[in-house]
Amino acid sequence: MLLVQKFGGSSVATLDHMERVADKIRSVRAAGDQVVVVVSAMGDRTDELVNLAVQANPAMPAREMDVLMATGEVQSTALLAMVLQRTGITAQSFTGREAGILTDSHHRRARILAVDPARLRAALADGITPVVAGFQGVDEGGAVTTLGRGGSDLTAIALAGALKADRCEIYSDVAGVFTADPRIVPSAVPLDHLSYDEMVELASQGAQVLQTRAVEYARTNKVVIHARSTFAEDAPGTLIVEKNQDNPPVTAVALATKVAKIGLVGVPDAPGVAAHLFSRLAEHGIDVDLVIQSLSHQKLNDIAFTVHLDDLPKAEPIAREVLVELKGSALIVDTDIAKVSAVGSGMLGRPGVAARVFLALADAGVNIQMIGTSEIKISCIVAAADAKRSLLAIHQAFGLAPLNSGSR
Amino acid sequence: MLLVQKFGGSSVATLDHMERVADKIRSVRAAGDQVVVVVSAMGDRTDELVNLAVQANPAMPAREMDVLMATGEVQSTALLAMVLQRTGITAQSFTGREAGILTDSHHRRARILAVDPARLRAALADGITPVVAGFQGVDEGGAVTTLGRGGSDLTAIALAGALKADRCEIYSDVAGVFTADPRIVPSAVPLDHLSYDEMVELASQGAQVLQTRAVEYARTNKVVIHARSTFAEDAPGTLIVEKNQDNPPVTAVALATKVAKIGLVGVPDAPGVAAHLFSRLAEHGIDVDLVIQSLSHQKLNDIAFTVHLDDLPKAEPIAREVLVELKGSALIVDTDIAKVSAVGSGMLGRPGVAARVFLALADAGVNIQMIGTSEIKISCIVAAADAKRSLLAIHQAFGLAPLNSGSR
Repeated sequence: MLLVQKFGGSSVATLDHMERVADKIRSVRAAGDQVVVVVSAMGDRTDELVNLAVQANPAMPAREMDVLMATGEVQSTALLAMVLQRTGITAQSFTGREAGILTDSHHRRARILAVDPARLRAALADGITPVVAGFQGVDEGGAVTTLGRGGSDLTAIALAGALKADRCEIYSDVAGVFTADPRIVPSAVPLDHLSYDEMVELASQGAQVLQTRAVEYARTNKVVIHARSTFAEDAPGTLIVEKNQDNPPVTAVALATKVAKIGLVGVPDAPGVAAHLFSRLAEHGIDVDLVIQSLSHQKLNDIAFTVHLDDLPKAEPIAREVLVELKGSALIVDTDIAKVSAVGSGMLGRPGVAARVFLALADAGVNIQMIGTSEIKISCIVAAADAKRSLLAIHQAFGLAPLNSGSR
Repeated sequence: MLLVQKFGGSSVATLDHMERVADKIRSVRAAGDQVVVVVSAMGDRTDELVNLAVQANPAMPAREMDVLMATGEVQSTALLAMVLQRTGITAQSFTGREAGILTDSHHRRARILAVDPARLRAALADGITPVVAGFQGVDEGGAVTTLGRGGSDLTAIALAGALKADRCEIYSDVAGVFTADPRIVPSAVPLDHLSYDEMVELASQGAQVLQTRAVEYARTNKVVIHARSTFAEDAPGTLIVEKNQDNPPVTAVALATKVAKIGLVGVPDAPGVAAHLFSRLAEHGIDVDLVIQSLSHQKLNDIAFTVHLDDLPKAEPIAREVLVELKGSALIVDTDIAKVSAVGSGMLGRPGVAARVFLALADAGVNIQMIGTSEIKISCIVAAADAKRSLLAIHQAFGLAPLNSGSR
């Protein structure tokens, strides 16, 4: 069997942590399996480098940032390879370049264009355990690039795809994907498995176990992901696969708190008004999430939409410009909100699920401000103060806690 | 004019230090000259990485050590490039690989085989100031290598040679090459210039301004070195050139304290005894420095030699084995000694110089234990307690202090 094992920054934060990682790798090798290891930078190293860079040049020029940031992962690979060698495992470090990760030239958020795992294959054939620097690649001109947030997951999944590995194990300090964030919903339980589609929705709705891009890459390249805990040895973790055979109406719930709502009050109820507003926002690279337009019987209308909180400083002036152009009466900005989402592959073709979500919130006394849906997701904007209660109510209503669900 | 400027670890220890380095580079660019910058790792970074590595694997596997160590210089290049960009200079970082430094595969002390400066030339032609990671290269298989102690000097000199630069400026925290170490001889003064041969002898006899290998490379490739201080703006520094036109009998004195003497007492006075001893030591890679054999009128003889203190643990057991084989009577080990050397290109063909050195030591009441000479160097082994006094005496006798020499 060939495995790819990825260990995040908290798993390699210190040399003691690396010893435990080495134990895991040794047990895989002892079982006769092959493994390619992918590591992040140690603990806070990345933050330390960013702090230095901000002082050196607040504009943080992207090409040099990538040169700087990529050193953190390289240090992890060399140190882990040394630890492995000391414990009798023939290991060798590989940079992203050496591992064959070819990307485009968008520094700090490069996309993987191709993976040429020839050198890794040769190492495996020689009985060597490769330790690969995550988060980084190289563009066609030979410049070092980095893959953006969650980039090490992406490295691991891309290598698993290229090497046709049996599984890509993503180790972190949580024991897999939960039915809800256990810090908010104490009764949340880890899921045995879920589908790529569900994981993509959960990741993009605020669950932080895996990054959306990495899961999308796995879906496209049919890489089986196993999300596991580095430190909870017995936890079985979560498999992310093509189809969730259980097909539950709601598999898990997620909470996003970095959300802002912008409302334009009293704009003309005429064709093209919404199109104008949203194309202006798109021109500035701002993703609009939920949208609501009041059903008006008069000539004037209200439009509200949500954006990520980080985009608010760019979005607000654009909305105000459009408001003035359209002679609207007021702009309302609300950051005191949250987005609660329920995700489940069984939602598809079962029209009653949305109603059960709304009922659960109503029973909990929560007012729903906006609603958004996809085929396997229902999102509701609620007041920030209601967020936790909303999450608990949906989690409870769909029997996600073990006491209620029995056979989950 | 094309300059190569090398800044050591103390010159780039912090971002504040880097600002001053950037000032220097800016003034070169403002004068219309081109510059290639070579940097070491920031301050203690290298030591920190070594400490981590020793804990990870006390054997410090050489290939992974090089991967780890090389990241320190890369971080310096990215940060300095960012600082330069902020201050309006188009700069770009280069790893050793990108700068075209090809080495053999002797990790941790690789030798430069060739330099292909095509990418640096292209950058210079585009008006870009390259910032190159010192101390590192890449072998034919593509693995990162490091060049050993003083490797960044070597990088700078090799690039200056390959680019046919007008001068290679080596910046450090001292204001050039002095007539003696100013911490020991307060009256020591910086030299305007000296020859490669003199600098090679001084470096190998204990002066720490430049490493022997780097100066030898400069001599072979006719690279003019200018040793300067980063922080003492007005200090003219020292030029290291083909010939020292002044041709003084003694240009400078040097002190080496990491010296050990091993004596074999009462071995046969027969042909081949010394050859046997020294070939045994050479087999183990131990460099023997000074040698003395007593002029004996009997059948038994004494042989004494010096080695670097670091080699003593390897050399002593070998000497003891040979002593037993030869049925010698005793082994004497003395680490309480020092080596005082006088170096001057004018020594050549002036037989009286050695006598003046010995006279100066005699006048100072210093007993000379061993003597070694080359064409432009006289070295004396003295008791450690006499070391400083010896250095002062020779420095004084040859008028190296400004009050005595007048026109130095």
